[in-house]
Amino acid sequence: MKVTLVQDILDANRRVSAANKRRFDEHGLLVLNLMSSPGAGKTTLLEHCISALAGELAIGVIEGDIQTSLDADRIEAAGAAFAHQINTRGACHIDGNMIAPVVDEMDLDALDLLFVENVGNLVCPAEFDVGEDEKLVLFSVTEGDDKPKKYPLMFQVSGVMLVNKIDLLPHLDADLDKIHAHARDVHPDMRIFDISCKTGEGLDAFYGWLREAVARKKATRV
Amino acid sequence: MKVTLVQDILDANRRVSAANKRRFDEHGLLVLNLMSSPGAGKTTLLEHCISALAGELAIGVIEGDIQTSLDADRIEAAGAAFAHQINTRGACHIDGNMIAPVVDEMDLDALDLLFVENVGNLVCPAEFDVGEDEKLVLFSVTEGDDKPKKYPLMFQVSGVMLVNKIDLLPHLDADLDKIHAHARDVHPDMRIFDISCKTGEGLDAFYGWLREAVARKKATRV
Repeated sequence: MKVTLVQDILDANRRVSAANKRRFDEHGLLVLNLMSSPGAGKTTLLEHCISALAGELAIGVIEGDIQTSLDADRIEAAGAAFAHQINTRGACHIDGNMIAPVVDEMDLDALDLLFVENVGNLVCPAEFDVGEDEKLVLFSVTEGDDKPKKYPLMFQVSGVMLVNKIDLLPHLDADLDKIHAHARDVHPDMRIFDISCKTGEGLDAFYGWLREAVARKKATRV
Repeated sequence: MKVTLVQDILDANRRVSAANKRRFDEHGLLVLNLMSSPGAGKTTLLEHCISALAGELAIGVIEGDIQTSLDADRIEAAGAAFAHQINTRGACHIDGNMIAPVVDEMDLDALDLLFVENVGNLVCPAEFDVGEDEKLVLFSVTEGDDKPKKYPLMFQVSGVMLVNKIDLLPHLDADLDKIHAHARDVHPDMRIFDISCKTGEGLDAFYGWLREAVARKKATRV
């Protein structure tokens, strides 16, 4: 009975999210669902992307938080082309239904790239599509080597992993090779970027990937 | 309809958890529900407690993980008086129902202190009692100052906050005073311990609190 209900919720979300995706596709808009534990650095990464690619890509962000609009304030200050805060009122993830009314308000042609910054949670968001082209998991080296093994679904559903805070590696016991290996154990062709939002290391490679992914999506516009 | 169902689940959990708590109370056994984001250092903290208090307190641990028994293996190796791994099969938290059959197997008189190490998640575990005397939130300084504001329920329901990895503060922008202030904004009489499981700083104060809490609970035994 409980299982059936969970299944119904997931199926209903899949339908709504597929409708969201059709709308994004009609406009050739690339949508990325950015997920991580609390404090891994999602908002800081987006601030960097927005300012580094200013004048080149018009980036919008839908922020998901249980409470507060701290993140949308930061994103707006960074110069985003669109920023909207969803407060989930306790819910532990963003789903397609939460996104749909926001999409109604947006000028989809005014954007090149839309990020959905999910609630900080390495578990629940992995189960809910929002209509994205790709899921990205951001992982902080401070969380330890073993997390891809312990939270496998998140790493299975994400095509891209960003390993953040590598500037802290000299002060930690964490091993970057092990993080990569454990992630590839659950997702063999995972695309991985090692980055530091503090020193800027590795960000150019990620910006290059974003440029190419936006260009690929625009080329599919019908 | 959805809200009603969630309420039913929470009410049912409260009943089962109250029954668990009655059993713990009959034996004067202190039970602490340890919660945090993934990688904040829950298992490492428990390893330290078990070895530092060996010969003085018999400590048991019920480990909650979505997958793997890595944590219970570590807890057993540290010399715990009892270690049991619950794999939640995807669920994002531990609840009273998951604990109850484990309690059936345990010799409650053989323990002085039982930790329930929850799934790494700063959201969902806050909603589910397991039958504990106290909820503890472990927070890593690497997660940033603003988390108590963004995940308020976790900090509201937890009587104790352990702020971990303070050895990393010189390498971070995080501000310890702000973390304390934000936590006390949502929970004014929060008991706070600043610790480093790496250097050992602050752990003695926490061990002292554990000793006193165990003694207080034993004194209530009927």
